[in-house]
Amino acid sequence: MSLRKQILLNAFSMNCVGHINHGLWTHPRDRSHEYKQLSYWTDLAKTLERGLFDGIFLADIVGVYDIYQSSVDLTLRESIQLPVNDPILLVSAMAAATQHLGFGITVNTSVEAPYTFARRMSTLDHLTEGRIGWNIVTGYLDSAVRALGQTGMNEHDTRYDRADDYLDVLYKLWEGSWADDAVVLDKTRRVFAEPDRVRKIHHKGPYYQSEGYHLAEPSAQRTPVLYQAGTSGRGRRFAGRHAECIFINAIDKAAAAKTARALREEAVAAGRRPEDIKIFVGMTVVPGRTASEAEAKLADYLDHANPEAGLAHFAAGSGIDFSRFEPDEAIEYATGNAIQSVTQLARQKGWTKRQLLKELAMGGRYPVVVGDGAKVAEELMSWVDEGGIDGFNLARTVVPESYVDFVDIVVPELQSRSAYKTAYDDGTLRRRLFGAGDRLPDNHYGSQFRRLEHVR
Amino acid sequence: MSLRKQILLNAFSMNCVGHINHGLWTHPRDRSHEYKQLSYWTDLAKTLERGLFDGIFLADIVGVYDIYQSSVDLTLRESIQLPVNDPILLVSAMAAATQHLGFGITVNTSVEAPYTFARRMSTLDHLTEGRIGWNIVTGYLDSAVRALGQTGMNEHDTRYDRADDYLDVLYKLWEGSWADDAVVLDKTRRVFAEPDRVRKIHHKGPYYQSEGYHLAEPSAQRTPVLYQAGTSGRGRRFAGRHAECIFINAIDKAAAAKTARALREEAVAAGRRPEDIKIFVGMTVVPGRTASEAEAKLADYLDHANPEAGLAHFAAGSGIDFSRFEPDEAIEYATGNAIQSVTQLARQKGWTKRQLLKELAMGGRYPVVVGDGAKVAEELMSWVDEGGIDGFNLARTVVPESYVDFVDIVVPELQSRSAYKTAYDDGTLRRRLFGAGDRLPDNHYGSQFRRLEHVR
Repeated sequence: MSLRKQILLNAFSMNCVGHINHGLWTHPRDRSHEYKQLSYWTDLAKTLERGLFDGIFLADIVGVYDIYQSSVDLTLRESIQLPVNDPILLVSAMAAATQHLGFGITVNTSVEAPYTFARRMSTLDHLTEGRIGWNIVTGYLDSAVRALGQTGMNEHDTRYDRADDYLDVLYKLWEGSWADDAVVLDKTRRVFAEPDRVRKIHHKGPYYQSEGYHLAEPSAQRTPVLYQAGTSGRGRRFAGRHAECIFINAIDKAAAAKTARALREEAVAAGRRPEDIKIFVGMTVVPGRTASEAEAKLADYLDHANPEAGLAHFAAGSGIDFSRFEPDEAIEYATGNAIQSVTQLARQKGWTKRQLLKELAMGGRYPVVVGDGAKVAEELMSWVDEGGIDGFNLARTVVPESYVDFVDIVVPELQSRSAYKTAYDDGTLRRRLFGAGDRLPDNHYGSQFRRLEHVR
Repeated sequence: MSLRKQILLNAFSMNCVGHINHGLWTHPRDRSHEYKQLSYWTDLAKTLERGLFDGIFLADIVGVYDIYQSSVDLTLRESIQLPVNDPILLVSAMAAATQHLGFGITVNTSVEAPYTFARRMSTLDHLTEGRIGWNIVTGYLDSAVRALGQTGMNEHDTRYDRADDYLDVLYKLWEGSWADDAVVLDKTRRVFAEPDRVRKIHHKGPYYQSEGYHLAEPSAQRTPVLYQAGTSGRGRRFAGRHAECIFINAIDKAAAAKTARALREEAVAAGRRPEDIKIFVGMTVVPGRTASEAEAKLADYLDHANPEAGLAHFAAGSGIDFSRFEPDEAIEYATGNAIQSVTQLARQKGWTKRQLLKELAMGGRYPVVVGDGAKVAEELMSWVDEGGIDGFNLARTVVPESYVDFVDIVVPELQSRSAYKTAYDDGTLRRRLFGAGDRLPDNHYGSQFRRLEHVR
């Protein structure tokens, strides 16, 4: 057992062509357009498992990026998360191709009733034998609201109130409806499940009502590992209560440290320990066998990346149509949106469009670490130490080589520094991430719903 | 090429323990409780593909059977479709394990907005390379309405009106939003999709509104093969317009012929040809290497089946709590429910509870064909000839042996009589079922939505 903190790693991807580092789909070796094929995903899963990745984290968006130039033209030409397929449907194929890799799947709470969504997650937790995580997303693009035929997007805080209520229904179903000993599978007595060990939930919340039995029997984790990415004030409070893994954006280690500290304080305020949440920073890595190989690779990637596409993506997140600005014109940044932290940073720095495009040279907003394996490993370790974080969501560059390179070049260097596991531990995703049990810990808000009086 | 009509075959299953023939989970060789494991499904898919099955048809139910004895006690003890996991999440793993098998997945139109559901089906059509079908279900159990927190179940006809509107949104997204030549993937010109070949849909229907771009690029079939099972008057009209494959229950060949004729007339009334719908009858088969082996197997199965569990299932479908009746008491059957045809039959025959239990000896309501391979093959062929149908949804008995037996014992006898294919044709599920194109035929209602004026 190593004493040094082990870095956690998720591959950060999406069921689409352009995800974070836009424009790289035009690289001759890039295969991200093969996202429609199962083998693309099963091959990727096997590569990640070879590199002992903790999980693959799949983003999602419902709606389109239509702020920049008030159109989707650039979005379509550069395939900026459009087209985008459903991520949840990839899981069972990747699970069949692997044994340990975890799956963090983004699903918006506005898409369906908690009752049927609870079953989807339980089904995946069964099929993966406890390797499923859910990235809780509550917001929506305006274009999604119109596409879904909903009456209008909720105010930011109301969204989180709704999501709190949604989660309560889920906890009741996942944690409270079936006792651990409900399923006995006794062929002789002809009892599959003991009726007195299964109970109806009765939920009458401000936003959701549900009365019924959970449709799924208990899975290994019951509640999937809960991921979240909101970092606004209300979002942090929501994360402090619910999230077990939090994904943050940070421009540097000091910013990461500040956000991580604030998030752990929220967890403590919710009765948990600081270490009960694992914090992942979004990161782009370009490793080479040698420093010069890495630099040459970076230059090649930058030739294919499209900063303007990155700007169009950022426009959707910030609500600002940057196409309306001259290169050096001052930009008035708003606050209070979904990726507030990045907008805040841009506002603090007073970035003009020209400066934004420079920041987005790789087509995306994440810090870029370049170098040979040793240099990348040490830089990542320093992020963990100085940033007070637990690991990384590694954005892809050219697919699949960005993950193959990371596994072949960086992983051994992390391992030789005792900063990364050399084999998977057994058990569920939650057990491996936290070194404890398969289920929500007793100090987690959701654990109270195991008790009968909280279900009724 | 054979001149004789080729029998179409679906394995009829469900992501749960007890499906149609209830009680057989207690058989020592039955492994249906392994439904939570991926290998159960991938092994089954491989068996079916070895037997050249056209598809696996997965039923689903949201809600629980709580009519019989006004409780779920027997439902839980005999696992009568409870617990039941989500079927859609099984597809990608089975697709990765096979090359030709089709997937007919049941999804209720009330679960989510058409916009996100359209993406789910397109995603699966991509991942399966055109092997996906959708079984359109519109109704709900009362227990589901309460669990989903919806305000009340719609009247039967309104349900179909709603579903018509839901389908219109889907057709616009699937058929009309992206032109076939929209995705060019031109790395040199930096054009993934041509913006002027992708268009927004604008739907303002009586029940659904949607304004947006389909999130998925065109898949092989675009619209999945459309399955339906409704056989009431309004359901038949709905099927005549939309369905390409229809699943019916029939107690004998004459009943099948009557229903099949009525359905084909509805198709003709909707501007289609009688042969544009394929009709599948639900059937249970118990084959043996010899007639006596089959009879012994049947007796063994009957020892483990539970007619009372079958009655509890039928109670939920008919809305009648049969537990309140004496064995020989007259039962007043209602009309107008989801499985009207079976209730009608019971009413016509004036079945008492004692008689129902006898009909349900195998735990389910389907005709049971027993015998050696030759006898079963000839009986199935006679159903097709006299019943005017196209094939069968084969209910499972003891799993997996019921499918293994069918493949090993019956398939060769069907093949030697030129009644069943000896190899898969290439192409999509629709192409293989109908011997024509990958897309909806031009005489199908949904095909009109390819034209711009119908999308706007």
